Amino acid sequence: MIERIVLKWRRYMLPIVVGVSAFVGQLAFASEGGDGGGGHGHFAVLFLWIAILLLLAKLSSLVERWGQPSVLGELVMGVILGNLALFGVTDFFEAMKHSEIITFFAELGVVILLFQIGLESNIAEMKKVGARALGVAIIGVVVPFVLGAYIVGPWLMPGLDQVAYLFLGAAMTATSVGITARVFKDLGKLQIKEAQIILGAAVIDDVMGLIILAVVSAIATVGAVTLGKISMITGTAILFLVGSIVIGQLSAKVLGKWFSKIHTGVAMKFTLAIVFALVFSWLAGLIGLAPIVGAFAAGLVLDPVHFKYFKDPKIVQDVKEYAEKIDPELKDKFSRMMHRHSHRHIEDLIEPLGHFFVPIFFIVTGMAVNLGTLTNIPILLVALGVTIAAFVGKLVSGLAAGNVDKWLVGWGMAPRGEVGLIFATIGKGLGVVSDEVFSVIIIMVIFTTLFTPPILSHILKKKEA
Amino acid sequence: MIERIVLKWRRYMLPIVVGVSAFVGQLAFASEGGDGGGGHGHFAVLFLWIAILLLLAKLSSLVERWGQPSVLGELVMGVILGNLALFGVTDFFEAMKHSEIITFFAELGVVILLFQIGLESNIAEMKKVGARALGVAIIGVVVPFVLGAYIVGPWLMPGLDQVAYLFLGAAMTATSVGITARVFKDLGKLQIKEAQIILGAAVIDDVMGLIILAVVSAIATVGAVTLGKISMITGTAILFLVGSIVIGQLSAKVLGKWFSKIHTGVAMKFTLAIVFALVFSWLAGLIGLAPIVGAFAAGLVLDPVHFKYFKDPKIVQDVKEYAEKIDPELKDKFSRMMHRHSHRHIEDLIEPLGHFFVPIFFIVTGMAVNLGTLTNIPILLVALGVTIAAFVGKLVSGLAAGNVDKWLVGWGMAPRGEVGLIFATIGKGLGVVSDEVFSVIIIMVIFTTLFTPPILSHILKKKEA
Repeated sequence: MIERIVLKWRRYMLPIVVGVSAFVGQLAFASEGGDGGGGHGHFAVLFLWIAILLLLAKLSSLVERWGQPSVLGELVMGVILGNLALFGVTDFFEAMKHSEIITFFAELGVVILLFQIGLESNIAEMKKVGARALGVAIIGVVVPFVLGAYIVGPWLMPGLDQVAYLFLGAAMTATSVGITARVFKDLGKLQIKEAQIILGAAVIDDVMGLIILAVVSAIATVGAVTLGKISMITGTAILFLVGSIVIGQLSAKVLGKWFSKIHTGVAMKFTLAIVFALVFSWLAGLIGLAPIVGAFAAGLVLDPVHFKYFKDPKIVQDVKEYAEKIDPELKDKFSRMMHRHSHRHIEDLIEPLGHFFVPIFFIVTGMAVNLGTLTNIPILLVALGVTIAAFVGKLVSGLAAGNVDKWLVGWGMAPRGEVGLIFATIGKGLGVVSDEVFSVIIIMVIFTTLFTPPILSHILKKKEA
Repeated sequence: MIERIVLKWRRYMLPIVVGVSAFVGQLAFASEGGDGGGGHGHFAVLFLWIAILLLLAKLSSLVERWGQPSVLGELVMGVILGNLALFGVTDFFEAMKHSEIITFFAELGVVILLFQIGLESNIAEMKKVGARALGVAIIGVVVPFVLGAYIVGPWLMPGLDQVAYLFLGAAMTATSVGITARVFKDLGKLQIKEAQIILGAAVIDDVMGLIILAVVSAIATVGAVTLGKISMITGTAILFLVGSIVIGQLSAKVLGKWFSKIHTGVAMKFTLAIVFALVFSWLAGLIGLAPIVGAFAAGLVLDPVHFKYFKDPKIVQDVKEYAEKIDPELKDKFSRMMHRHSHRHIEDLIEPLGHFFVPIFFIVTGMAVNLGTLTNIPILLVALGVTIAAFVGKLVSGLAAGNVDKWLVGWGMAPRGEVGLIFATIGKGLGVVSDEVFSVIIIMVIFTTLFTPPILSHILKKKEA
């Protein structure tokens, strides 16, 4: 009975839930003013917000029914929530958009996602594709930059200051790897060579993005940039990456042993892993790289072997014990079989954190999309041209990927996400990026972000078939 | 080699790590001003803070070596961090103390702890001890209140306004169940009858605390309180508790089925559980109860049976499959054996969130302790008298616990934690609680919070031996 109703009403479920949430939200918002008096519940409304975000994220995974990756559902859900103002519902989600705590949850979400991706990746595999990733990254930075700063920019928006074109080009270089990584993860394809190349290229991209940002900012403020400054930024970033991986690998071994002296339980194992992720993210942020680069490096560095001094998960112990009770020989068989699960245990421990934080990142990313920018037709047309150039620039980069699906790598590099927005925001802050150029960049980011997941998912599924 | 060094230096580890952390903290704090320019890393220092808190929490679990529950280690670590100013180190942890995000993490931590405790508890068992829990709660509210407001207060601090004594008495009534629950959880004793009685009594306590707060606040502001208002508050609170449990049980059944229609995976299962916890916490906060009461109710309501439509955890599937490959009969044996693990799966999924958030609550609670209040000898002496009365009041309540270890129940009810502080803060806000009375309440809270864990742990271990 209930099944029948659910099946029948499934198509209406999304709008109904969004509507009900918005109503409950209004209620919560209204009630926030009058605290019952207990002094409790200062943060109570945040509990509700997080619950609603997680619920809507899961409901939006219904897009899987139509063959789309669930990350697209989360992004679109975010776009809907972020633009409810267009439908006359404002208060609740507006307040959520400006909540520092929700923003931090989102930031932590993408850090944990890249940490998970790093844990599933493998340094040896990454090294194998290193040269190709470098090639993809360089082409994927140079071509979009040249297209944006010297061809499409001056052509579609003539008469602007040269620095504005530089910022446009710079905003077109960055890759936002979170979206691509999530699509590969959703489809269980993180281990294929293309995924490894994209991940490697994205990390290198972030380093190059750092350099480009320093250069164009310097040109915008003092009119020039010294080679010394460029070398210093480049040197610091490379030193961080190489250093963190080398020192990380060495210290993980020692720390694993050290921590297991205090306690060999699950809590300690979990803490060791998450502290690695957080400290690496902090270090990356400290030198101006994206924290996610640090989180990815932390995941890459950590290896099951570093946790060998800790106890097996309870369930693995139980199975071994039980098998031994039945037959000692059976125990050996099951021990071999359970080996993989002990190895995966760290990933299993981080997974619930992922379920908690990661969807918030993608919904919040979607919420940042202002559909209002799409209503100005002349700007929209310019932005479409810039978007095409942005896609072309990254698709070309796939050519450097060697003997793999170049098309897949090219599309994988396409999403610009929040990194493009950072360039636009800084340029605006420096007064060289006008409102129009800013809107153009934002629309380009929206399109590259929203169009890529279904395309990637389509390619991956066709490949499999 | 490393073992030897670690063992030798273990005793110095805590001060060394605190020192190093403080230094790194200073560095981070200093670097915060000069953002590298990437626009990244707005929140980067928070990653470091959380990492340090988690690390120190785990290091403080070394107190287990001396037979103490690790929650005591976390509290004491918090007291040290919160009072580094006494040793000339201020900037870093001061900023952390006032971080809204860290405060929210702490609040979420205690919510998740009580949700976990609720998951491990069982409605049927709670009902069995209901009458005794009610008795414990009533005595544990009436006796401390009478002692504080009419005997110890006027005797030790003569000449104050009658309303000040009322607030002192009120602050002595509240039980802060998080600490006791954590001790029982640390020692794996949540299933014993005493634990169930304490949990039940603490929930009832919170309802009575709500009523008392409304009454004394009304007396302080308008000089009197109507019976109608008391009845309304009482009615709302009871309605919430009964209603949430009844509606929760009914809806969990339907929602479990509904959600499994969207997806039968782990992420959906996890989300269903955590959304329950968050929504119940929000609802509790909305009507003026502590969010933890809602979280506990949510855990109590959720039952493995609500998740029966979801897939088994991967590892359970694998074991069954493997056993079947060896021998179909073996599969049945292992299926029965794995049944328990499928049942526990929700608790396993919530556990990593617990490892992430819960220690932050206890360290932050410790950080709120201002050791400076202990230096005023006359106030300290008065506070000691009040503390003794506070302990006596709760120990007497254990007498209502019936045929169990009354002593254990009494001590379990003793910690006042943040609930006592809320009373003191509201009284101060209304201008009826003077600085002296405020300090006395705070010291009473400190003592009842810090002395209880080792005593409980001692009683529990002696019981076992």
